[in-house]
Amino acid sequence: MEPLHGGNLVEASMRYGIAAEEFIDFSANINFLGVPSSVKEAIKDSLHLVGCYPDPKCRALKEALCCYTGLKEKNVLVGNGASELIFLAVKALKPRQVLLLNPTFSEYARAVKAEGGKLQSLFLLPESGFWISLTEIIPLLKNIDLLFLCNPNNPTGTLWRREEVIKLIEAAREANTAVTVDEAFMDFVDEAENFTVLREVEHYSNLIVLRSLTKYFALPGIRLGYLAAPASLVQELEKLRDPWSVNWLAQVAGVAALQDKEYQERTRQCIKIEREFLYKGLASVPFLQVWASAANFFLAKILLPEFTAKDLEKQMALQKILIRRGDSFPGLGRQYFRIAVRGRKENLLLLDLLPDILREAASKSPRVYA
Amino acid sequence: MEPLHGGNLVEASMRYGIAAEEFIDFSANINFLGVPSSVKEAIKDSLHLVGCYPDPKCRALKEALCCYTGLKEKNVLVGNGASELIFLAVKALKPRQVLLLNPTFSEYARAVKAEGGKLQSLFLLPESGFWISLTEIIPLLKNIDLLFLCNPNNPTGTLWRREEVIKLIEAAREANTAVTVDEAFMDFVDEAENFTVLREVEHYSNLIVLRSLTKYFALPGIRLGYLAAPASLVQELEKLRDPWSVNWLAQVAGVAALQDKEYQERTRQCIKIEREFLYKGLASVPFLQVWASAANFFLAKILLPEFTAKDLEKQMALQKILIRRGDSFPGLGRQYFRIAVRGRKENLLLLDLLPDILREAASKSPRVYA
Repeated sequence: MEPLHGGNLVEASMRYGIAAEEFIDFSANINFLGVPSSVKEAIKDSLHLVGCYPDPKCRALKEALCCYTGLKEKNVLVGNGASELIFLAVKALKPRQVLLLNPTFSEYARAVKAEGGKLQSLFLLPESGFWISLTEIIPLLKNIDLLFLCNPNNPTGTLWRREEVIKLIEAAREANTAVTVDEAFMDFVDEAENFTVLREVEHYSNLIVLRSLTKYFALPGIRLGYLAAPASLVQELEKLRDPWSVNWLAQVAGVAALQDKEYQERTRQCIKIEREFLYKGLASVPFLQVWASAANFFLAKILLPEFTAKDLEKQMALQKILIRRGDSFPGLGRQYFRIAVRGRKENLLLLDLLPDILREAASKSPRVYA
Repeated sequence: MEPLHGGNLVEASMRYGIAAEEFIDFSANINFLGVPSSVKEAIKDSLHLVGCYPDPKCRALKEALCCYTGLKEKNVLVGNGASELIFLAVKALKPRQVLLLNPTFSEYARAVKAEGGKLQSLFLLPESGFWISLTEIIPLLKNIDLLFLCNPNNPTGTLWRREEVIKLIEAAREANTAVTVDEAFMDFVDEAENFTVLREVEHYSNLIVLRSLTKYFALPGIRLGYLAAPASLVQELEKLRDPWSVNWLAQVAGVAALQDKEYQERTRQCIKIEREFLYKGLASVPFLQVWASAANFFLAKILLPEFTAKDLEKQMALQKILIRRGDSFPGLGRQYFRIAVRGRKENLLLLDLLPDILREAASKSPRVYA
């Protein structure tokens, strides 16, 4: 069985013979508050737009985005999910050599391969808490056309400070290297202004920043992301794709979500509380190591060499809980898995089940742990 | 003012200071019956799916498509509108030399340019009714990597018979040329089985067929199209794009539309009747030439050299009627425009307004027409 991207409920349902809606999904890094009711209402009120071509320029949504981010319209491109924008950025930049900080989101590598580029990896190591000083990357940039930096990084949760990222962008500019900073999870970060480089696209000709509305506003089903870049690059990107890629309902949903300040405030509070709660809980689970995270998910490692994340995935799934095993991320072994932060009741369920499964697995390996 | 793709109501609204919903839109080739109510209901019932990642394999929709078309699942790829699939096909085939039968849909040229390919044109001529025998194309294929054939052709409505298209595909195979047949409007054609090559993808390794659900089922706002191709090519195409490009609501909408036999039957009847009605009406408008069409739109030419389609577009828009002027289609001059078939009441409005405008324009050119 192939490892899956998170959130593939249809596939999980077929694998385990359990209805998709019965699963508690810790595998996808989606805001556990779910789709804002303002968004559902906005879509319901806009069903007539299904019969009209979407605005290719996404005017109303861009305006709402600029209001939300402080960006200028000329620096913004809206996409059919951030994934479309990853592929589009690679298509425009046509990099021959691309550097990734692995383990990281797998779509960067897929997009680079799709355009015939070559991949190089610098590995974030568990013994350093999956952290690295970004200055260590600078000497490697010489022959690199494009660097992807996911901040905070999926699946490790690693977060780099704004000044550090800017130093890297400046060094990359000297080296003629483009930098794509994927901030898909930045909205979940406390005091994000100390970490984001979103508005720096006005100052650095080699910088692209990716953002997603999918995660923070729980809209993965409708697809919505955006990109910030120098205005000339935004114009070039627009030429490289079909004009209607962002559907009307997504545009309407985005406007409603960005204007829903109550949802945003509630998310800020809940995520912070539940992230801390889940972290403490996971840290006290036996035979488990967990890394601190700035985002709405945690990377964890099973400390039982004969019990893999694949085994855990299966046992959890049969209890209707989905986790994301880590073995498809380069650099992570078979013992790693990722879990999203969810609401209290569901986090408690997970924290209840996990120690039982791991203790039982340990009891079957008496050589090592008895 | 730039010419627009059809159906750009937001832009038209800004240009003319008229609310988008007040326009009668003859500029977009959309089924005038509008969004099927079955589709609206299906979307309303599926709003919870906005919170889940879409099925990357579009299983339920593919099943419905195979049932509708007789295709096998391995030969089908669903897309975020047929436009995404045009760009994807060009990306996969990486053609250096591409032949277009102009005037035709403009996104082929945009997609080829985006991938750095070169364009050659064979022109369909008004004096031949925009028709050409496809055997005339065969000698030109020698250095052509990819040929686009839009059947029926947008904007001319030209339709080629199945046997003729197959002969062309066979000759192209000999010449090592891929053929992409865009059948976006084939569902509107009477006795389409005599014209479609959809199911030939099982037999020809050089054939891709594009289809749209946007036009026939009036779903342009949600984006939905599909492609049929040899199974190995479908697999290759899947690797070249992000996994979630087809949003959940589009997948749900597609299933509902394909199963709505009543809507399909009603469309078949209405389109046929209104197409004939509008054609006869247009043919009797003074100072106007119109070409017969197999699809749900007509190409027409104003026979007043000093009155352009741009002039007409403006005068009609001020009367809240949108047409699509033709000057952005290579090979069409400033006198051409395209109009979609709509319902009786709206067709009558158009047929009422058009002669008045053209007569008045003629009266201002007494030298020629007095």
